[in-house]
Amino acid sequence: MSSQTDSDVTLIGLGLMGRALAGALLKVGHQITVWNRTSAKAEDLVAQGARLADSVNIAVNASPVTITCVSDYKSLQQAFAPVADELDGRLLVNLTSGDSAQAREMARWTEQRGAYYLDGAIMAVPPTIGTDEAVILLSGSKTAFKTHQSTLAALGTATYLGEDHGLSALYDVAGLSMMWGVLNAWLHGVALLGTAGVDASTYTPFAVQMAQGTVGWLAGYADQVDSGTYPPDDATLATHAGGMAHLIEESERLAVNADLPRLFKALVDQAITAGQAGHSYPVLIEQFTQESRTS
Amino acid sequence: MSSQTDSDVTLIGLGLMGRALAGALLKVGHQITVWNRTSAKAEDLVAQGARLADSVNIAVNASPVTITCVSDYKSLQQAFAPVADELDGRLLVNLTSGDSAQAREMARWTEQRGAYYLDGAIMAVPPTIGTDEAVILLSGSKTAFKTHQSTLAALGTATYLGEDHGLSALYDVAGLSMMWGVLNAWLHGVALLGTAGVDASTYTPFAVQMAQGTVGWLAGYADQVDSGTYPPDDATLATHAGGMAHLIEESERLAVNADLPRLFKALVDQAITAGQAGHSYPVLIEQFTQESRTS
Ligand SMILES: NC(=O)c1ccc[n+]([C@@H]2O[C@H](COP(=O)([O-])OP(=O)(O)OC[C@H]3O[C@@H](n4cnc5c(N)ncnc54)[C@H](OP(=O)(O)O)[C@@H]3O)[C@@H](O)[C@H]2O)c1
Ligand SMILES: NC(=O)c1ccc[n+]([C@@H]2O[C@H](COP(=O)([O-])OP(=O)(O)OC[C@H]3O[C@@H](n4cnc5c(N)ncnc54)[C@H](OP(=O)(O)O)[C@@H]3O)[C@@H](O)[C@H]2O)c1
Repeated sequence: MSSQTDSDVTLIGLGLMGRALAGALLKVGHQITVWNRTSAKAEDLVAQGARLADSVNIAVNASPVTITCVSDYKSLQQAFAPVADELDGRLLVNLTSGDSAQAREMARWTEQRGAYYLDGAIMAVPPTIGTDEAVILLSGSKTAFKTHQSTLAALGTATYLGEDHGLSALYDVAGLSMMWGVLNAWLHGVALLGTAGVDASTYTPFAVQMAQGTVGWLAGYADQVDSGTYPPDDATLATHAGGMAHLIEESERLAVNADLPRLFKALVDQAITAGQAGHSYPVLIEQFTQESRTS
Repeated sequence: MSSQTDSDVTLIGLGLMGRALAGALLKVGHQITVWNRTSAKAEDLVAQGARLADSVNIAVNASPVTITCVSDYKSLQQAFAPVADELDGRLLVNLTSGDSAQAREMARWTEQRGAYYLDGAIMAVPPTIGTDEAVILLSGSKTAFKTHQSTLAALGTATYLGEDHGLSALYDVAGLSMMWGVLNAWLHGVALLGTAGVDASTYTPFAVQMAQGTVGWLAGYADQVDSGTYPPDDATLATHAGGMAHLIEESERLAVNADLPRLFKALVDQAITAGQAGHSYPVLIEQFTQESRTS
């Protein structure tokens, strides 16, 4: 590997996502070295100029930056079991999905081997890799991020979140929570309007408008959470509770699933029991920052 | 009331919202007649040129259009108990909050008295009444809406939904479901990031981006619901279930309330049990259009 240069990149894991990452790096002219448990998956990439390494150790040794993308952390540990000093002074960018604790533990393991570590979460599907649409969240060593930013930018919109290695995993799941929150609330509305023969396409522009309106309040509500003050300039929790009761009744009468508003109301009722009936909605953060008391 | 003209409007109910509606009508030059159970609340409006009627009957008789805005349908029935033939040939626009069944029943009652009926839901707070920001949903007689559209436009963005009188109430609660869906998912994310010392204002732009991205898929997902076909071009329910399990575990480990993802997963698991693991997310509509099986 005498030809190693600053722009060389090693890729460990050539599943659906790993192959997309490798393809994006080849496309912008990086020399890449690849390793995969099942080496046959490297064939297309080798035909495009990738070097296939015989072992993880050789692969890691071939480039200043190694990107990993395997099924999960257990697979990662198995794949990296033979690796000893090869990581010293290099950067490991781990794009394997996991949780914040796994990311922080991997950071300790990597740093003990003298390496820089960036933990990442890919908020995209393989076909969008290499385009701006593919958001890749990264957290950990800021120095390493800055040094290798242009390499990472070849994969998509590489977004640096902070030094805490757990941040990518947390933003990832928090973002998914928002996604499911919007999708489920939309489906509930579609079901309600369906009882009156209104089809989903007719209802949806209104749902979009409501979602966008609500999204517009979040910055102001974030200030309330950060300052711990919840002036009810728009509506009180008590008013919300009344509206939720009404939504539950309407859903039940129409035989539409009412689980979602029942959960919303249970959270609001807890806050009201805690004496917060006169506060604005974001005071509910105090219910979210503690384990469930409803289940 | 010999001076009655086409643009005269009667207002029944001068609470916080009723007074805002009356003010908006006065502002654009309507002659208004008002009635309120507690007549003292009319004083300011009378000073601005409103006529105060001694009874609901006299009030309804004074204008071709009567707008009602009282606490609830029970209050409305009490207020309208003395009304007999006065409504004949006139339009009643009822902006009192209620459910779709109450709206449809009120429509029958009104139409039996020879009147046109529009049921409405005010998606706004009193200070925004009279501005475009105040969305007022209306359903019922299309002829009546068209005839009196300019009067209704004085109150805000008057949006006609269709002939079914229950539609305003349904859109109203469906829209609130979307609002609470976004707010709760956002709070869940704020709580998750809070465990890593990230404040709400730092996290929120990412949540906004995720919400807007998801909102962008709804039109396509609506087509799936309307056609009853759910090709998993982006992700299968099975993939979503895996992500949800991961979000639940991360929330539990961090002692963040996991009720929301637990409910999301329960719905997805039901669909998977029903054989839909390989479909796209909107197939969950089949869970929403039936009564809960989780609670
Ligand atoms: N696909 C997506 O849309 C997407 C989106 C965002 C994030 N991700 C994340 O990206 C990662 C990879 O996903 P993928 O779609 O590429 O999955 P995949 O197609 O199933 O590929 C899994 C990869 O992991 C390797 N692997 C599994 N167990 C291993 C072990 N014990 N030792 C060594 N290698 C092992 C596999 O090697 P073999 O070829 O030898 O089996 C393969 O290269 C996952 O963490 C996933 O959550 C994927
Ligand atoms: N305020 C808002 O932000 C808002 C937003 C959207 C929708 N709305 C809806 O608008 C409607 C009115 O709300 P609001 O804020 O104006 O409430 P409010 O300030 O409490 O006023 C209630 C009105 O209803 C009248 N009323 C109550 N019971 C009555 C009865 N038995 N007979 C005759 N009149 C009776 C009251 O008369 P008295 O003055 O004699 O008590 C008063 O005029 C409600 O359906 C509410 O849900 C309000």
